[in-house]
Amino acid sequence: MTGALVLQTDFGTSDGAVSAMYGVALKVSPSVRIFDLTHDIPQYNLWEASYRLIQTIQYWPADTVFVSVVDPGVGSSRRSVAVRARTGQIVVTPDNGTLTHVKRMLGVAEARELRESGNRLEGSELSYTFHGRDVYAYTGARLAAGQIALADVGEEIDPASIVELPLVEAVREGDAIEGTIDVLDVRFGSLWSNVPFPLFAGLGVEYGRRVEVSIRNDTREVYRNTMVYAKSFADVHAGEPLVYINSVLNVAVAINQGSFARAYNIGTGLSWKLAIRKAPKIVYE
Amino acid sequence: MTGALVLQTDFGTSDGAVSAMYGVALKVSPSVRIFDLTHDIPQYNLWEASYRLIQTIQYWPADTVFVSVVDPGVGSSRRSVAVRARTGQIVVTPDNGTLTHVKRMLGVAEARELRESGNRLEGSELSYTFHGRDVYAYTGARLAAGQIALADVGEEIDPASIVELPLVEAVREGDAIEGTIDVLDVRFGSLWSNVPFPLFAGLGVEYGRRVEVSIRNDTREVYRNTMVYAKSFADVHAGEPLVYINSVLNVAVAINQGSFARAYNIGTGLSWKLAIRKAPKIVYE
Amino acid sequence: MTGALVLQTDFGTSDGAVSAMYGVALKVSPSVRIFDLTHDIPQYNLWEASYRLIQTIQYWPADTVFVSVVDPGVGSSRRSVAVRARTGQIVVTPDNGTLTHVKRMLGVAEARELRESGNRLEGSELSYTFHGRDVYAYTGARLAAGQIALADVGEEIDPASIVELPLVEAVREGDAIEGTIDVLDVRFGSLWSNVPFPLFAGLGVEYGRRVEVSIRNDTREVYRNTMVYAKSFADVHAGEPLVYINSVLNVAVAINQGSFARAYNIGTGLSWKLAIRKAPKIVYE
Repeated sequence: MTGALVLQTDFGTSDGAVSAMYGVALKVSPSVRIFDLTHDIPQYNLWEASYRLIQTIQYWPADTVFVSVVDPGVGSSRRSVAVRARTGQIVVTPDNGTLTHVKRMLGVAEARELRESGNRLEGSELSYTFHGRDVYAYTGARLAAGQIALADVGEEIDPASIVELPLVEAVREGDAIEGTIDVLDVRFGSLWSNVPFPLFAGLGVEYGRRVEVSIRNDTREVYRNTMVYAKSFADVHAGEPLVYINSVLNVAVAINQGSFARAYNIGTGLSWKLAIRKAPKIVYE
Repeated sequence: MTGALVLQTDFGTSDGAVSAMYGVALKVSPSVRIFDLTHDIPQYNLWEASYRLIQTIQYWPADTVFVSVVDPGVGSSRRSVAVRARTGQIVVTPDNGTLTHVKRMLGVAEARELRESGNRLEGSELSYTFHGRDVYAYTGARLAAGQIALADVGEEIDPASIVELPLVEAVREGDAIEGTIDVLDVRFGSLWSNVPFPLFAGLGVEYGRRVEVSIRNDTREVYRNTMVYAKSFADVHAGEPLVYINSVLNVAVAINQGSFARAYNIGTGLSWKLAIRKAPKIVYE
Repeated sequence: MTGALVLQTDFGTSDGAVSAMYGVALKVSPSVRIFDLTHDIPQYNLWEASYRLIQTIQYWPADTVFVSVVDPGVGSSRRSVAVRARTGQIVVTPDNGTLTHVKRMLGVAEARELRESGNRLEGSELSYTFHGRDVYAYTGARLAAGQIALADVGEEIDPASIVELPLVEAVREGDAIEGTIDVLDVRFGSLWSNVPFPLFAGLGVEYGRRVEVSIRNDTREVYRNTMVYAKSFADVHAGEPLVYINSVLNVAVAINQGSFARAYNIGTGLSWKLAIRKAPKIVYE
């Protein structure tokens, strides 16, 4: 058993909140090994919390326990849940959409409603606003340490009942693929679309050939141009745009050593659409 | 023994300073387990260093060693100390006010003046500006690894002599509680006051009832309005202000899913006063 | 064996990239202990990546494995290498200048070209843009866990062939020392020069005496003034500039409790020159 506990929040690390969660976990058992996914999820952004989980979860050992606390409804009647993905990892989280991608793309093998009684840090009864510390870190650590099993967390619930955010699938429309811009590669400003590699592959574009990319925000066209479909950034000049397959094997759009998102003020979410088609072959030297 | 060493600094993590401290600690002994409180204390802000310690220290195992290095006087005659809180944890720090809240709120069971001779990384004699690495991380790691005991750090000193920053207690004035705004919940912009729950409870306000909150900066009134005393954020609408009991069981003021601090340009410290009283009962739906 | 793996990137920690690297490493072996140097290297800044390595590497145990991924040429023909410094630590990195300071200042005892076949995470063959996860973290973890030795990474190469960035040495010119501003102490805005303590010592300036510091950006003089050569910050008033010997034992310039870099808009790199000479003795009280 690895005993790994991975924390994700929108708390930042500038105050003591995340550190208190670490302390609680370590107090549960010195055998727990605590790591971070990220604590920089934009506040209350459930979509991004869900995305960062799917981006990373499979790279961790199968018995890893994730705790994700992005929780606009702390104190509301939203349930707390602990689920086991089909790939083995456990996620403890408010049931508010955080599990959208894991449910859809990996599948949930087992789901439990986390009941607070018995799963709450002793002495924390007066605190109603920090379930991340008092309930989630505490329970995640007990799972990671093997002190309790998933079944001990609470009643089994139907995985189908887990809350999902609206999630649009990319589609082929004639000679084009249409999708949405899911998320940014934050530091580099690349656009990560929801177009999976196999769908794009159907266009029959070879490395080094050009594609036409258009980007719309609702009804407004924000960008339209052709660019190379490159295997990697080094295949284009610095400052040149490219289409590539990113590290989660979806289509992405970037400027080599620049920020595509900042260059064209591009955001993310369902209102940000991307269409991509084969461009007429041009000799490009 | 947990062997946990928790570091707090105002160094940030963008350069190599914190990592050098980690390396020094690990070189002392591979058994040390190193964690972060935060490295984003605003530069030289001793008050916030003291606050972040009290916010977290009790959530860590009793034998945890904290090293806090916010040190405007590095190289001055300010002492270095290592103290054991009544709750068991050890803190190694410059004696410059960083221990204010721990001393007042937990109590110091034992205090030692850290003498540099024998408690300094070998080969660091020419370096006078990075005690965090050369003295504090080194000594903290030796304590956490059990290589030395607190008594080996230096002469015992009177806990009463530990330097304290001015710290004002909240008081009841007629039908109001008056306190100060100690610190922000950084990412969310909530105001954390120094008003403890029991003092506030004396006003006899029930959940869901309204209180009047006024905020002054020195003599200028910056904010005055009524808001709900809520058990948790979800009890009010998004965008609505609320008074609640925070995770350290003091009174706090927030905007649900907004930033109270940014909305009204509110800061922290002794010049920022908050008064809270029961508002006339209104039916609020 | 410590099993320590230290990661440095320009990825930031706001998305899942670094966490995926952690997961890969932990999956290689639960015995690996993973740490961060920093993930805030400015994008593609090889110079700073090289500098942060030399700033920290010697403070870590001799068998520590560093993985540094600042890689403007991901997917190009730039080699990947793994080298052992003369001080024992291993660095796995693209061979793009990241090893400049380690090679020059510590020396490289053994260098291997990392061949991808056999050193790549299984199942990652379709991913061409995240060698940090798929190749470097994976190989670094296998080295840290002792699953492979340095010799297993690939063919031995001549350490002299490791790519170096241009690196200028400080020189004595008459009664002055001339050097460059290598890097900032990021959070505090101090200027770290390339002037080593022994070269400066040749000027015969005693603590408390004044030196004249001039700073040029290319041909433009940006700053010229005298200031105290201080043992530590506390030797001057708050707000006063000083020259001191920094934690890597080079000459540095700062404002006590202020930011020299921000005060005078000073940058880093070979175009930023600094000259320092003894100032006429003045009585300064």
